[in-house]
Amino acid sequence: MTLRALAFDVFGTVVDWRGSVVRELTAFGEARGVQRDWARFTDDWRAGYPAAMNRVRTGELPWLKIDALHRMILDVLLADAGIADVPEADLDHLNRAWHRLDPWPDSVAGLTRLKESYTITTLSNGNLSLLTNMAKRAGLPWDCVISAELFRHYKPDPEAYLGCADLLDVDPGELALVAAHPSDLRAARDAGLRTAYVARPLERGPGREPPRVEDGEFDYVAADFLDLAGQLA
Amino acid sequence: MTLRALAFDVFGTVVDWRGSVVRELTAFGEARGVQRDWARFTDDWRAGYPAAMNRVRTGELPWLKIDALHRMILDVLLADAGIADVPEADLDHLNRAWHRLDPWPDSVAGLTRLKESYTITTLSNGNLSLLTNMAKRAGLPWDCVISAELFRHYKPDPEAYLGCADLLDVDPGELALVAAHPSDLRAARDAGLRTAYVARPLERGPGREPPRVEDGEFDYVAADFLDLAGQLA
Repeated sequence: MTLRALAFDVFGTVVDWRGSVVRELTAFGEARGVQRDWARFTDDWRAGYPAAMNRVRTGELPWLKIDALHRMILDVLLADAGIADVPEADLDHLNRAWHRLDPWPDSVAGLTRLKESYTITTLSNGNLSLLTNMAKRAGLPWDCVISAELFRHYKPDPEAYLGCADLLDVDPGELALVAAHPSDLRAARDAGLRTAYVARPLERGPGREPPRVEDGEFDYVAADFLDLAGQLA
Repeated sequence: MTLRALAFDVFGTVVDWRGSVVRELTAFGEARGVQRDWARFTDDWRAGYPAAMNRVRTGELPWLKIDALHRMILDVLLADAGIADVPEADLDHLNRAWHRLDPWPDSVAGLTRLKESYTITTLSNGNLSLLTNMAKRAGLPWDCVISAELFRHYKPDPEAYLGCADLLDVDPGELALVAAHPSDLRAARDAGLRTAYVARPLERGPGREPPRVEDGEFDYVAADFLDLAGQLA
């Protein structure tokens, strides 16, 4: 079966969420004259997100955009940090830090090369407006923008992977998920997609252990998007 | 309320479906050694489409992608024209003529200018893969690709217009529909969107009467996308 399309996980795979959110929080702190451990705040913000998504996936919460989940977590973290009386417009701007994430250095060039031969789309739990705003700011050359929001099923629910193939009108085996996260790739593989693991050793900051990937577990293993483009050429 | 995003009708507004499908049918006829009135065949193909959509909108048919509706109509038209024994791969290729529509001469340049100041998306009854393939081939620089397919409601159902605003995370009044068809614009206006009429006098071929538009009926009236970009600058 011919590979026709590539669906990309976004947070961590295409963009450096940690470096970008630390930058945004640092600017927020400077503007308000407050100092905190913004790297830790960022890690806590991100760490709250799988749990919040699971509350949606299990039906405890109704469907919510990631923007709303990010905001729920942010409000708790700000309260815990003793930061109060922030105007709503500033809170909203800060919450949308996740719309303003910078790509990894190879992302735009690699996507541009991959786009020559394949349909390239996002397949992210980020909401569609978040992904669209991010692409517009960062120059990510997607052919289309697909989000878990369209299926009201967050990854790793199979509906997200199969829904993506259906929208692209390809068989699951003609579609590869590209991701830096083995758990996402394993769920995609279980749904019948092909898989491409791309290492992003700095996703969680310097000096962190990369995820473990078994030999032969995924169809492609690449050092970055340019390496992947070379393998798929 | 600030205008933030533009949603474009596609068939006729962004691309010249008639000229493009006549070209595709002519090539099909030449390859098979059959001659027919391909302009009329094209008009009949297009004319069958609102009725087919209405069968979905009223619940007589389940949800179907436009590709499937186009194919239902094509099969009838080919039989009526006495054209038989066409291999399935050729039929499928011909049916996807609607993925290979050429933009009007101002479309790419106009969209590129509008994209500098606004989020620009499709809002078409065409399925997502059709719109994505079309954009890739024609170089249409969408920020994202939104289709009635995402809402399982064809325009002019209000769910399509309001669903588009929800996905973009804007108020309906922050979103304008851009279209060459007054009926589409009136439905968008009734749903609370702003409206921009763009004249496409050649949509149905030369010498045809343009649609009637009342003075002041729509927020913007433009000769083409470059004119619209000038008005919205």
